Amino acid sequence: MRARYKPWADDYLKENNNIVVPNPSDYKGDWQAKFTNHAPIHLEIGTGKGQFIMGMAQQFPNVNFIGIEVVQSILVSAVQKVVEEQPGNVCFISDDADNVTDIFGENEVDKIYLNFSDPWPKNKHAKRRLTYKTFLEQYQSILKPGGEIVLKTDNMHLFEYSLVSFSQFGMELEEVVLDLHEFNDPTNIMTEYEEKFSAKGQPIYRCRATFV
Amino acid sequence: MRARYKPWADDYLKENNNIVVPNPSDYKGDWQAKFTNHAPIHLEIGTGKGQFIMGMAQQFPNVNFIGIEVVQSILVSAVQKVVEEQPGNVCFISDDADNVTDIFGENEVDKIYLNFSDPWPKNKHAKRRLTYKTFLEQYQSILKPGGEIVLKTDNMHLFEYSLVSFSQFGMELEEVVLDLHEFNDPTNIMTEYEEKFSAKGQPIYRCRATFV
Ligand SMILES: C[S@@+](CC[C@H](N)C(=O)[O-])C[C@H]1O[C@@H](n2cnc3c(N)ncnc32)[C@H](O)[C@@H]1O
Ligand SMILES: C[S@@+](CC[C@H](N)C(=O)[O-])C[C@H]1O[C@@H](n2cnc3c(N)ncnc32)[C@H](O)[C@@H]1O
Repeated sequence: MRARYKPWADDYLKENNNIVVPNPSDYKGDWQAKFTNHAPIHLEIGTGKGQFIMGMAQQFPNVNFIGIEVVQSILVSAVQKVVEEQPGNVCFISDDADNVTDIFGENEVDKIYLNFSDPWPKNKHAKRRLTYKTFLEQYQSILKPGGEIVLKTDNMHLFEYSLVSFSQFGMELEEVVLDLHEFNDPTNIMTEYEEKFSAKGQPIYRCRATFV
Repeated sequence: MRARYKPWADDYLKENNNIVVPNPSDYKGDWQAKFTNHAPIHLEIGTGKGQFIMGMAQQFPNVNFIGIEVVQSILVSAVQKVVEEQPGNVCFISDDADNVTDIFGENEVDKIYLNFSDPWPKNKHAKRRLTYKTFLEQYQSILKPGGEIVLKTDNMHLFEYSLVSFSQFGMELEEVVLDLHEFNDPTNIMTEYEEKFSAKGQPIYRCRATFV
């Protein structure tokens, strides 16, 4: 996802420290305190410009949404949306998702969304894919038993890879959809990438998988 | 798969009783005796006109291939190919695959191929799909531990369904390919349906799954 370089991004994220949690590991095991409620926690990894998480927060006001995004200049756009619309149930973490077990306690998260994750097409980069087994180990630790990973992508090879990776990790597939817009789920919230690729007529893949 | 009605089909299959095994359950647990060797047994369910099994038999002379086909007038075309080319490692069963456990012993089969199985698109017919759990139970019983099911299809919804069905049965996915001809497996043998649908530009799906 591209964004202009924003030299002020770091300051902007720090100023909005009610939306972008400054020391997220301080909340480890106690994220509901941040939201001052007992609602389930859904995590989006690689939130991008925030269109998905904002739409979801509106559709599910009784869920707490947390988005992690590693690129500050991209996260800025998501934060701006929250500043403007003031949903009470969205916050962000400005960090790499490779250490989510430092940020969330065991069984703390109800659902994880992976939307149009970077495909890392070369085999030698497989370890960087967000569905590589070292990531799955971390997701398993922070997800509640029966908690779900929901993956959407336009990238055929990432999707093939992820189905096999989930399965070989011992996860169970709850759903596989090979053309989400033909399938026509009325509750589906489109991400920025999803809009872009489906406008070009590319199929969007989705699967849901649980640790059993 | 369509075939003209052939009133002589029954007689033709009976005449060729070296190729079309008359009482297949007689061989239960002892199929290698039919081939008078100790080579592994690969089973194709819904063999159609036999193009795949003939190509495979040529590519793998040290494997015994058995094809099951329920429609006699279709099976005739497959038998004619064997009559003509005389491979030593192909025979057929003229029957419905819904009772393969009556025909094969436990752990007797090394691999099962499901090629362009009838999709049975209506949910109320899900039980008839060759990847429905009652079929998987039978495959599990006749397959060797670690034995594989290889599914190819052009039908998106059957493929989606089958991935979930395999997974929920506790099987492990070894491979998922969402565009087999782009993937370009040089060892791939095309079936009749595969030729037809890929000529139209439709993607062909393939997966390999094992009982773990
Ligand atoms: C291809 S974009 C998709 C953005 C958005 N989810 C969408 O669907 O429109 C992938 C996003 O994930 C972010 N990202 C990639 N790897 C990450 C990681 N390890 N931790 C956090 N964010 C990551 C990238 O910076 C980028 O914004
Ligand atoms: C769509 S055709 C595909 C034929 C061939 N495998 C191909 O790929 O060209 C499906 C075939 O499976 C056979 N079939 C369907 N259900 C079957 C069953 N329960 N037992 C045996 N054969 C079956 C049909 O008669 C038909 O010939």
